[in-house]
Amino acid sequence: MSYKVIEGGVTAAKGFLSASAAAGIKYKDRPDMALIYSQVPCAAAGTFTTNIVKAAPVKWDQDIVYNKPFAQAVVINAGIANACTGEEGYKYCKETADAAAKILKIEADSVLVASTGVIGMQLPMDRIEAGVRAMAPKLEGSLESGTASAKAIMTTDTKKKEAAVSVELGGKTVTIGGMCKGSGMIHPNMCTMLGFITTDAAISKEMLQEALKEDVKDTYNMVSVDGDTSTNDTVLLLANGMAGNPKITEKNQDYQAFKEALHMVNETLAKKIAGDGEGCTALFEVKIVGAESKEQAAVLAKSVITSNLTKAAIFGHDANWGRILCAMGYSGASFDPEKVDLFFESKAGKLQIIENGVAADYSEEEATKILSQPEVTATADIKMGDAQATAWGCDLTFDYVKINADYRS
Amino acid sequence: MSYKVIEGGVTAAKGFLSASAAAGIKYKDRPDMALIYSQVPCAAAGTFTTNIVKAAPVKWDQDIVYNKPFAQAVVINAGIANACTGEEGYKYCKETADAAAKILKIEADSVLVASTGVIGMQLPMDRIEAGVRAMAPKLEGSLESGTASAKAIMTTDTKKKEAAVSVELGGKTVTIGGMCKGSGMIHPNMCTMLGFITTDAAISKEMLQEALKEDVKDTYNMVSVDGDTSTNDTVLLLANGMAGNPKITEKNQDYQAFKEALHMVNETLAKKIAGDGEGCTALFEVKIVGAESKEQAAVLAKSVITSNLTKAAIFGHDANWGRILCAMGYSGASFDPEKVDLFFESKAGKLQIIENGVAADYSEEEATKILSQPEVTATADIKMGDAQATAWGCDLTFDYVKINADYRS
Repeated sequence: MSYKVIEGGVTAAKGFLSASAAAGIKYKDRPDMALIYSQVPCAAAGTFTTNIVKAAPVKWDQDIVYNKPFAQAVVINAGIANACTGEEGYKYCKETADAAAKILKIEADSVLVASTGVIGMQLPMDRIEAGVRAMAPKLEGSLESGTASAKAIMTTDTKKKEAAVSVELGGKTVTIGGMCKGSGMIHPNMCTMLGFITTDAAISKEMLQEALKEDVKDTYNMVSVDGDTSTNDTVLLLANGMAGNPKITEKNQDYQAFKEALHMVNETLAKKIAGDGEGCTALFEVKIVGAESKEQAAVLAKSVITSNLTKAAIFGHDANWGRILCAMGYSGASFDPEKVDLFFESKAGKLQIIENGVAADYSEEEATKILSQPEVTATADIKMGDAQATAWGCDLTFDYVKINADYRS
Repeated sequence: MSYKVIEGGVTAAKGFLSASAAAGIKYKDRPDMALIYSQVPCAAAGTFTTNIVKAAPVKWDQDIVYNKPFAQAVVINAGIANACTGEEGYKYCKETADAAAKILKIEADSVLVASTGVIGMQLPMDRIEAGVRAMAPKLEGSLESGTASAKAIMTTDTKKKEAAVSVELGGKTVTIGGMCKGSGMIHPNMCTMLGFITTDAAISKEMLQEALKEDVKDTYNMVSVDGDTSTNDTVLLLANGMAGNPKITEKNQDYQAFKEALHMVNETLAKKIAGDGEGCTALFEVKIVGAESKEQAAVLAKSVITSNLTKAAIFGHDANWGRILCAMGYSGASFDPEKVDLFFESKAGKLQIIENGVAADYSEEEATKILSQPEVTATADIKMGDAQATAWGCDLTFDYVKINADYRS
């Protein structure tokens, strides 16, 4: 481990500025737009929702990430997702990019856009454009500005989500920082929610995309709040090269160190999304160990964190381990239920609950104490090999239902 | 349609008797065991959970259905699922069958068993055996007795679930009746929850199994309460031949009429399970029409009824159609989102919500009125062909969370 966790988020890396504004798109009296800007053009990587129903900004960004050499800014709004909005919605992406390009004096096809919120409504373009004009003069590279942006992109999130690390590459300090938002409709596949990672590393577009694509599998794609894969899932990773490190163009040692550092940022953000799932009271981590392959372990871990019954039991601090074994059983992955050991763990201790598929002799009282912590881990050993995987979810609560029964009103 | 819907359940068909008892297995002061008995040996068909973690009674019944020529009785208990109970649990299935065989003077390998309730606890065999001894002398063929059995197998169900039809086959009146229980951990795959169907039809074991296997795909397998496929899902279909119809041994006209009648019983029971999902306030029916194939339509319909966000919106009477389109989009089935029309319908009226993938010009007030009924249907036309499928689910409510946060206590 060669990286160091540092303070900050999307403005932590050299040359990245941000701003935010209260544009009144849907929320009242709170910032709901953010702008990320790099002083020089960036190599841009991105991963996007696998949902067939893709929001307009996803289509816009895919075009830039896949077909254009550089990106230099990102305009983000909360409140309206610009999904299921047809050609009109796509036109609004272009108009947003045009407005930002004009005031920032860059090319419109280097302006990425991202939206989150209600599906099916059109963006109020007058407010979006006014927001862009308000933010541009306020761009700055302070950590406070990054934090303000992380707050501006929240919807039902209750906490802002930032992470940053630094790593030495070729004698130069490279920084990677990011922010994201999550909360509901969170079950990323291939990619995730909205995440924005910036780095001053010098790295080719190909290597950047490779590093991101590989790492989302182990981070964002291992998170689920409610099993619903959003229409807007997007992670963008911008690298502007201002750290001055020897440019990474192949999978050398620097690439590995960069990827390890990137993983730390992504994993931290992914866990923050799970731990702030809509209405949740606990981060629920599930580890499958002793698997034959990482894929098998991942399928099992994700099946457990998406089980409504398991999630409700976690909310109730109930060691209802049968539900965990049940969710593993219908996952589609094969294993021998009669070999499974299961442990619950938190700050309050660690306890074996199942031994070889049947109940171990444990104290329900102690189990409840362990499950009453804000971060709870269940580890299942399936005794087939050495592979493992970890997934992150949260409990299912009254507030999840409350939030989603009247989200639009 | 040649069948007629009639009163009754598992005792509607000739020669089938039932009884129930309060055995005190886990619940207090309520019946929690049921016994079904046929005066003559029956051809038995069954479909069972696809969960790798199979409860002991599932393994016991699979052996009888797949390997033995006849069955004549079913012993059912609520409160404890006898799942994840190892060899001891399987031994208790045998002891239950032995106890029933002895008092009913039949073979132990013609006694099916079924359990539902908490996973991981062992059955209190003294109470089970006392329950069997108490029920045997009380066996009777009245509709009231069938209804009492339907009540005895309930767990978190709030309503007993019965259905029966009669159909003329070769000049004889054949009756098919059944009962089931559902409520939570309901996401049948290949089969379902606990369902017990009895018929006096004369039909070969092969044809009986074929009819059941085909029909569960369109009925129980199209139901989901919470996406969790149980360890105990079982549907048993017993045919004792006492109607005296010409025995069905091939897929002739009588087979088709029998299957149509069976479908009516199964669909009625399946809808009752969805409409009485844990904590639910509404039956949510989703129809996909204009599909290229039935499989495609089924995948899309099931994805919508299992979407937590859609279910929460139904609870909130909120026409949040973006969530429906989103759930269709991540289903894995392909379609063109920009061709989809969507309608909401209930006793309060019918309303087009989406036209070609974007919002139609509809009244939110009218939509809310339609969605405030206890039975709500969403129909999506994907305009690709003539195939269709229907799935049944329910809304996601505070009470679902409440029930499952402290189910064991």
